[in-house]
Amino acid sequence: MVIHYPNGQTYHQPAANSSHLKTKREHPNVIFGNRGMSLEDELNQSNIYYLQKEIAVIHKKPVPIQIVQVSYPKRSAAVIKEAYFKQSSTTDYNGVYKGHYLDFEAKETKNKTSFPLSNFHEHQVKHMKACVRQGGICFTIIKFSATQQLFLLPAAILFDYWDNQANGRKSIEKKVIVKHGYAINYHVQPLIPYLDYVDKLINK
Amino acid sequence: MVIHYPNGQTYHQPAANSSHLKTKREHPNVIFGNRGMSLEDELNQSNIYYLQKEIAVIHKKPVPIQIVQVSYPKRSAAVIKEAYFKQSSTTDYNGVYKGHYLDFEAKETKNKTSFPLSNFHEHQVKHMKACVRQGGICFTIIKFSATQQLFLLPAAILFDYWDNQANGRKSIEKKVIVKHGYAINYHVQPLIPYLDYVDKLINK
Repeated sequence: MVIHYPNGQTYHQPAANSSHLKTKREHPNVIFGNRGMSLEDELNQSNIYYLQKEIAVIHKKPVPIQIVQVSYPKRSAAVIKEAYFKQSSTTDYNGVYKGHYLDFEAKETKNKTSFPLSNFHEHQVKHMKACVRQGGICFTIIKFSATQQLFLLPAAILFDYWDNQANGRKSIEKKVIVKHGYAINYHVQPLIPYLDYVDKLINK
Repeated sequence: MVIHYPNGQTYHQPAANSSHLKTKREHPNVIFGNRGMSLEDELNQSNIYYLQKEIAVIHKKPVPIQIVQVSYPKRSAAVIKEAYFKQSSTTDYNGVYKGHYLDFEAKETKNKTSFPLSNFHEHQVKHMKACVRQGGICFTIIKFSATQQLFLLPAAILFDYWDNQANGRKSIEKKVIVKHGYAINYHVQPLIPYLDYVDKLINK
């Protein structure tokens, strides 16, 4: 159906979701990157790029679900009718890069001056510590959404703040993240070139 | 309610699920191991042992689900009301062991003389090939349920058979698995000591 404005002009419905992608193709030198995308979407897109280019194999783990009831309708797919979200016992992302096991969590915060430790669960930190003991490379990708700034923070800094929460400090100041983490600039391919900074962790 | 046998003796209902565990504790030298457990349960139990002993960090990935509808009842947890199973794009298990990235699939077959390749999807094999290219260690744990025999089969053998399916052979003969794989004997702690055979792959 064609819709007209009161003045008679034809109304063209904007294509939902694809608008920023189109814009990107029309202006290849301008990096719009992350507009409207969640950090998870941005990382998934980056990981697809890394996978296709055979640079690394990194996947986000599915959300753990406790399934209670499933119905099996005839001639169609099984439908889960009742299920609940479970708390994950690990981080969200892991995989292999240049022979190294990578394991990380990605977190977005609206906070402007610090990163609250409440973004993590005890078992996630415990999991990362266990991975580090096995020789894995662990970190967090933190996005300050107000300023669209991205950082890769090595796990050691998180562990340090986590273990000292009893002293009263329940967050990591942004200035600490700036000092001890790596600022990641949005790129085109991949959108978030975080492996460039993983290289720095490997070569440390 | 107390139930009596016709002869007047009291009937004690056996505790469901825990019976074989009890038996195991009463007879510590007898390995009942896997009776009634799925290969997945056996591996999960083994991975918990490896994790607790700080030997390795290996987890089964959650089943991927496409969530369509979620309801948020007041004062209680969110309920998923409609969701569908998605095909996984990776294998089921991965993690880190002695600095190595491990990635594997576990499969049970009722077949007595061979292991059908239909147990795998194209993208799972593709995923394992990508992991091997990054220096990961990939394999399959195969259980022949009729004889309760377990094998660790290095990924290279699977790739070989997978890539040659066009020649007509749609399964791996058990004798090939016996020859090129490692027979794993059930143990107590861990139930499936598969990392002993991963050591052989690492030292190869």
